[in-house]
Amino acid sequence: MNNHPFDQALALTLTDVPGVYHGSTSAAYWNMVGPFGGITAAIALKSVLQHPALLGQPIALTVNFAGAVVDGPFTVSATPRRTNRSTQHWVIELTQIGSSGQVEVMLTGTAVTAVRRNTWSSDEIAMPVVPRPEGLLEEKPMTGVEWIHRYDMRFVEGAFPTEWKAQGDTSQSRLWMRDSPQRCLDFCALAAMADIFFPRVYLRRALRVPAGTVALTVYFHADAAQLTASGSAYLLGQARAQTFRNGFFDQSSQLWNEAGLLLATTNQIVYFKE
Amino acid sequence: MNNHPFDQALALTLTDVPGVYHGSTSAAYWNMVGPFGGITAAIALKSVLQHPALLGQPIALTVNFAGAVVDGPFTVSATPRRTNRSTQHWVIELTQIGSSGQVEVMLTGTAVTAVRRNTWSSDEIAMPVVPRPEGLLEEKPMTGVEWIHRYDMRFVEGAFPTEWKAQGDTSQSRLWMRDSPQRCLDFCALAAMADIFFPRVYLRRALRVPAGTVALTVYFHADAAQLTASGSAYLLGQARAQTFRNGFFDQSSQLWNEAGLLLATTNQIVYFKE
Repeated sequence: MNNHPFDQALALTLTDVPGVYHGSTSAAYWNMVGPFGGITAAIALKSVLQHPALLGQPIALTVNFAGAVVDGPFTVSATPRRTNRSTQHWVIELTQIGSSGQVEVMLTGTAVTAVRRNTWSSDEIAMPVVPRPEGLLEEKPMTGVEWIHRYDMRFVEGAFPTEWKAQGDTSQSRLWMRDSPQRCLDFCALAAMADIFFPRVYLRRALRVPAGTVALTVYFHADAAQLTASGSAYLLGQARAQTFRNGFFDQSSQLWNEAGLLLATTNQIVYFKE
Repeated sequence: MNNHPFDQALALTLTDVPGVYHGSTSAAYWNMVGPFGGITAAIALKSVLQHPALLGQPIALTVNFAGAVVDGPFTVSATPRRTNRSTQHWVIELTQIGSSGQVEVMLTGTAVTAVRRNTWSSDEIAMPVVPRPEGLLEEKPMTGVEWIHRYDMRFVEGAFPTEWKAQGDTSQSRLWMRDSPQRCLDFCALAAMADIFFPRVYLRRALRVPAGTVALTVYFHADAAQLTASGSAYLLGQARAQTFRNGFFDQSSQLWNEAGLLLATTNQIVYFKE
């Protein structure tokens, strides 16, 4: 097994049932009251990618955070519900013995994998023109959580507010990011980084209200070769909300590699308390 | 049963198993080789909303179009996999006796429902300033498909190209839409309209290449009262792609009511052949 903390967090043990794996939460990616959602999303995707019947590469991943994952072992299952000539449809579930002492569903999800063919292609939205990461300060957007130390993050705009006094008028953040220590990009790492953006409500309200991702969808626009070619260089991420309404807001995000190729677009809906 | 074709298309018959329903495809919403994806998404949502154990209102819906739905009966099931104090997580599946003569999975999906509370709220993106629908021509964006006659669509920009000669440089469409005949808005109708935008590749390539939605996610930002207040008036829809790459592209869309309230944001990933 690779010794990188990301690979350790994603280590899954086979069971007698194909597509059913045992794993364990990782202290290295701990958030406030559970694991960083991105690592859980990556584990969900890993369960698909490790399945012996896998067809193709990830196109879409949706995970719903149903319950607060607790420190300890979990079971994750990936079931291919339909396999077509070039596409495959997956149902994913992650369960744990929860705080109730019973088996609890912590995550539901679906994925689509497909064999890609070369076609006409065009990135319709261009990577924003921003300063290079080397000239920017490495910042930790929050304190008191462990997982942010697993990423090198360099904000171009929309950093975590340091003064908590006034509402902002935009929720947009742009930042360079890469694994720390560096690690060659793959689908699971990209899925995790799709959840790297702190809750947009922090920016708009300049107030750290209780908030947590409810559902996350990632569309993978790059193939494995394009991810490998991205190496361990920085990705540019951009995130903003479209609306905040009565307890929930959305985040709409893009992830480009340093060469300006749009690798993934991702959306999430987030609970917030006030 | 309401006589509106939308309600007829969504009529589900109870079975002995809670959350498992029988239905039948509707000629009124037929697309080229199967039902309009929006009507299938609406049926998936209906299976959740009709469940006796339902908690709250829809927040997120993801449906994956696994196989081509064939004309005839189907079974749709909604299973609450986890119910929390104020949120509930659903797994959805639609099956049919397919062209193989076997039971086939045609749709996988998940949904999140929740009890909303009044909180600080803000629409961060404003409804575009566009001409009112009354002054615009009603257009059918395509010919040869039945479902488009179930909608009154009035394009502001990005109508279906009528000259097939040059690549466009943007995939953005803006249009007013409402059910035809008119019908008071509800969650299922909104889910269907989230899929009303024709494939963005038609605009960019000015070429009607084979294309079909693979996965669709809808985030519902309005509650039932806000949908009811929207009545049977027009919604403004906006859609564009972020990237087209090797057989798949995304569509990122917003739906506002006439008063300018953002009711839903939605994303999909679409297969295209060339």
